[in-house]
Amino acid sequence: MAEYRLLIDTSDEKGLVYTVSKILFEHNLNIESNSEYVDKEVNKFFMRTVLSGEFNKEKLLIDIKDALPNDARIKLSANSKKDIVILATKEAHCLGDILIRYVSGELNANIKAVVANHDTLQDLVEKFNIPFELVSHENLSREDHEDLVIKAIDKYNPELIILAKYMRILNPKFVTHYQGKILNIHHSFLPAFIGANPYKQAFNRGVKIIGATAHYVTDDLDEGPIISQDVVRVDHTYSWQNMRDAGRNVEKVVLSNALSLLLQDRVFVYGNKTVIL
Amino acid sequence: MAEYRLLIDTSDEKGLVYTVSKILFEHNLNIESNSEYVDKEVNKFFMRTVLSGEFNKEKLLIDIKDALPNDARIKLSANSKKDIVILATKEAHCLGDILIRYVSGELNANIKAVVANHDTLQDLVEKFNIPFELVSHENLSREDHEDLVIKAIDKYNPELIILAKYMRILNPKFVTHYQGKILNIHHSFLPAFIGANPYKQAFNRGVKIIGATAHYVTDDLDEGPIISQDVVRVDHTYSWQNMRDAGRNVEKVVLSNALSLLLQDRVFVYGNKTVIL
Amino acid sequence: MAEYRLLIDTSDEKGLVYTVSKILFEHNLNIESNSEYVDKEVNKFFMRTVLSGEFNKEKLLIDIKDALPNDARIKLSANSKKDIVILATKEAHCLGDILIRYVSGELNANIKAVVANHDTLQDLVEKFNIPFELVSHENLSREDHEDLVIKAIDKYNPELIILAKYMRILNPKFVTHYQGKILNIHHSFLPAFIGANPYKQAFNRGVKIIGATAHYVTDDLDEGPIISQDVVRVDHTYSWQNMRDAGRNVEKVVLSNALSLLLQDRVFVYGNKTVIL
Amino acid sequence: MAEYRLLIDTSDEKGLVYTVSKILFEHNLNIESNSEYVDKEVNKFFMRTVLSGEFNKEKLLIDIKDALPNDARIKLSANSKKDIVILATKEAHCLGDILIRYVSGELNANIKAVVANHDTLQDLVEKFNIPFELVSHENLSREDHEDLVIKAIDKYNPELIILAKYMRILNPKFVTHYQGKILNIHHSFLPAFIGANPYKQAFNRGVKIIGATAHYVTDDLDEGPIISQDVVRVDHTYSWQNMRDAGRNVEKVVLSNALSLLLQDRVFVYGNKTVIL
Repeated sequence: MAEYRLLIDTSDEKGLVYTVSKILFEHNLNIESNSEYVDKEVNKFFMRTVLSGEFNKEKLLIDIKDALPNDARIKLSANSKKDIVILATKEAHCLGDILIRYVSGELNANIKAVVANHDTLQDLVEKFNIPFELVSHENLSREDHEDLVIKAIDKYNPELIILAKYMRILNPKFVTHYQGKILNIHHSFLPAFIGANPYKQAFNRGVKIIGATAHYVTDDLDEGPIISQDVVRVDHTYSWQNMRDAGRNVEKVVLSNALSLLLQDRVFVYGNKTVIL
Repeated sequence: MAEYRLLIDTSDEKGLVYTVSKILFEHNLNIESNSEYVDKEVNKFFMRTVLSGEFNKEKLLIDIKDALPNDARIKLSANSKKDIVILATKEAHCLGDILIRYVSGELNANIKAVVANHDTLQDLVEKFNIPFELVSHENLSREDHEDLVIKAIDKYNPELIILAKYMRILNPKFVTHYQGKILNIHHSFLPAFIGANPYKQAFNRGVKIIGATAHYVTDDLDEGPIISQDVVRVDHTYSWQNMRDAGRNVEKVVLSNALSLLLQDRVFVYGNKTVIL
Repeated sequence: MAEYRLLIDTSDEKGLVYTVSKILFEHNLNIESNSEYVDKEVNKFFMRTVLSGEFNKEKLLIDIKDALPNDARIKLSANSKKDIVILATKEAHCLGDILIRYVSGELNANIKAVVANHDTLQDLVEKFNIPFELVSHENLSREDHEDLVIKAIDKYNPELIILAKYMRILNPKFVTHYQGKILNIHHSFLPAFIGANPYKQAFNRGVKIIGATAHYVTDDLDEGPIISQDVVRVDHTYSWQNMRDAGRNVEKVVLSNALSLLLQDRVFVYGNKTVIL
Repeated sequence: MAEYRLLIDTSDEKGLVYTVSKILFEHNLNIESNSEYVDKEVNKFFMRTVLSGEFNKEKLLIDIKDALPNDARIKLSANSKKDIVILATKEAHCLGDILIRYVSGELNANIKAVVANHDTLQDLVEKFNIPFELVSHENLSREDHEDLVIKAIDKYNPELIILAKYMRILNPKFVTHYQGKILNIHHSFLPAFIGANPYKQAFNRGVKIIGATAHYVTDDLDEGPIISQDVVRVDHTYSWQNMRDAGRNVEKVVLSNALSLLLQDRVFVYGNKTVIL
């Protein structure tokens, strides 16, 4: 029996749980799990329900839409593999972690292609029989390069774009084109060490803990809604390269965890925050 | 407007969320927050709802009871201070942490008394104008001593008994007398290092991480349902005393966190496990 | 037999370990433990040795000084209680944690006094028979207030000043007066959320982890050398007040850990970094 | 200029640091870094020194041996790639993590071969042009199978054997054959959940944290000296499969960290403990 995930976010009002659970009951659906969250401060209601059963999808969505406030956003997503495209530059650790999960059958996604601005990772990607699209930025303006990247991605029509250490700043045009679909890993514990060379910054500041942050990409560089973060201890014996090496373990795990949350449709975004149900 | 917590656990069946949310709606209650969890394997449903509004408590409880399966357990608890009694022996760190929270107004509880089998902590407790009941175990059988402890506790009729490093093994009689009301901190990452001197055991085993575990007390020593755990890194330079000192930070934080969960009525117990909503 | 800690920092050159260990050997000293660190990038050598034995202190220091580079700094410190003064404002958690350690005999220090700009904590401090010096800032310029604070502190001639959530910005005059002697706890994972209300900043940024940082105070606000940091996970259900409450556990543990390092003479400072041996 | 690591462990006596540093000085060696540790309880001295310079290796070793107590063990190891063989069964995450590090040039080792008792991982290994030796255990006694595994390993004469989730119990003969050379990852926070199916055990016990442990293999199953451990939080919503999936992230990072320590010659073993310098 197929499983579906129903995601609702809407302005809050009394009786929403009752309203939605009544409709699900009337459609004879099984609730496998259910979570809600209300942000009182901004009067927002979030609900994620895992459903199973035989039902009329269009009818269900219409019934829910009719019963909810006008600003409600409703999403019904089957528990099936999502198509993704990965962007990378030269570093293998994040990409490699996803590839190993993929080949082990742990990743609930189809990797349609890897797009990169260097050919460093081509051999690795092709070992896994995944298309590798090299889009060099050499002799191109940022805009022209990005247009080519967009073209390379759009061939595959992915639901999600994963920036697995893609070391290029993105223009608003790119971000708008894939609104709400771009996951990035930033190699610092944001908002500490925004910008270039965070490990050098961390080394120079003499911190005792470093981290990594997976976030949705918005126009504001390093300012998108945070999905997942983790840290690791360092000490005075670490050079900035040692910090980078230690950080790589955190980066890959944080990115893979965030990707897993997205593939399970567990992340809501509002403002520059996430709700994870 | 008073806030209430409604806790339900019951065997699972279709429509429970709908059933309960309908009753709450009909009683004109505001749902401040709501969480459910279903354990499919054992077919159990858990729900914690924070309510506000004016309502008839008896009527609400009857309506819910009538609508739920026969084995349903329903608890309606006001958001008010719970009476607690703390048991201790000689160590100050867990008790002291609770006392500082208490005096800062951070603890949503009334500490009615501290009961101890040594007088080491008497001065500390009395600084805070809390009754200190010394029940020495000297020259007494375990049973006779425990009877005196029970008598000392029962004067205060507490909702919760907190074992803040109370270093005595409890008899089944004691545990049964306070069924589901005793919170203990064990100075290891259970189930590792059950029994006496866990820090010496950890030292001898050469572990690189030590921990602490807060759990409900059941007849089975160190086997009660776990509420909270945390850990801290150690290395080869730590003597067992260093491990103990490092462990104390973890013990006090884990115990205080678990106590806070209990004071918020967030912990369900089934079998030897907890669900925390 | 008394124990001493010998701390050396100097520009690096070949044979330093040999040179120093030879002198210690010739003075017939037992080395209880020994650690060195060399920062190749800045050519600095750090060494901490715990010594025991009967010896002529002046002679030892002269012998070492004569054998080392001209810029060498040498410190010989007995393993005895250091005098400290604590500064606080209204919050009890950091101060309380230190007081409980103090009364348990866990703290290798004499708390000579607590100086505060509010009377909120007076009752708590006086329970422990420690002088409480109220220096209100009302109707005073920052400079005039600080002069009074310095006067209050200097009566006790402390080796260390502990800012246990002292919520006043310090002038350069104050910092210079106690150069290298002031330990502060900042309620964020520096360098994230510098400045006022870090928990509100963290809440607004939607982070998934919050932290605390203990550091030496320098003229540059929140920019002093970091001694210790730790973090705790939060999620979307946390209000900023919940983050503050969760953060308090981290703050008090981080501050107490850093204080413990200072009391063991384990922290070297160079530039805006620390080496901890 | 080549870099060497000098490792010494010996019974402790006065003047050892002086003795060794004198010899290094006389051989005109640069000390890049130096760490010692003394375990007072068992009177053992450990020292790891990173050296650079031109020197006569045999002469240095003889000079040191002559100067130290009779029971001293001395090892001089060049900073070059060590040959390793990896043993695996069916799971890809630990092996895959090592392969990705290998292909990125992050691993200071030559992977000579992967030996497995199932063919599940053959495709993955061969993508990386590494010999895959299938040694099925079907229809073989444990002893006969192990003899074949030993034969398969010994072709490559490795310095280290890495058990990357090799799910077979090893006989004393095997362990003795590779004394002090076998690194294992155990999928629990040892000594909790020794033996089979630790994630099911953890699930049944209702723990709130799970972990992984990298250790040297000795005859005593799951009892070898621990090198590295780490943990991750879980809660009541985790099935045992979810715990296993979360645990895999920890397993691979812990194993890779421990391997990195071994490749840097940073681990001393004594009794069932490690000293990591």
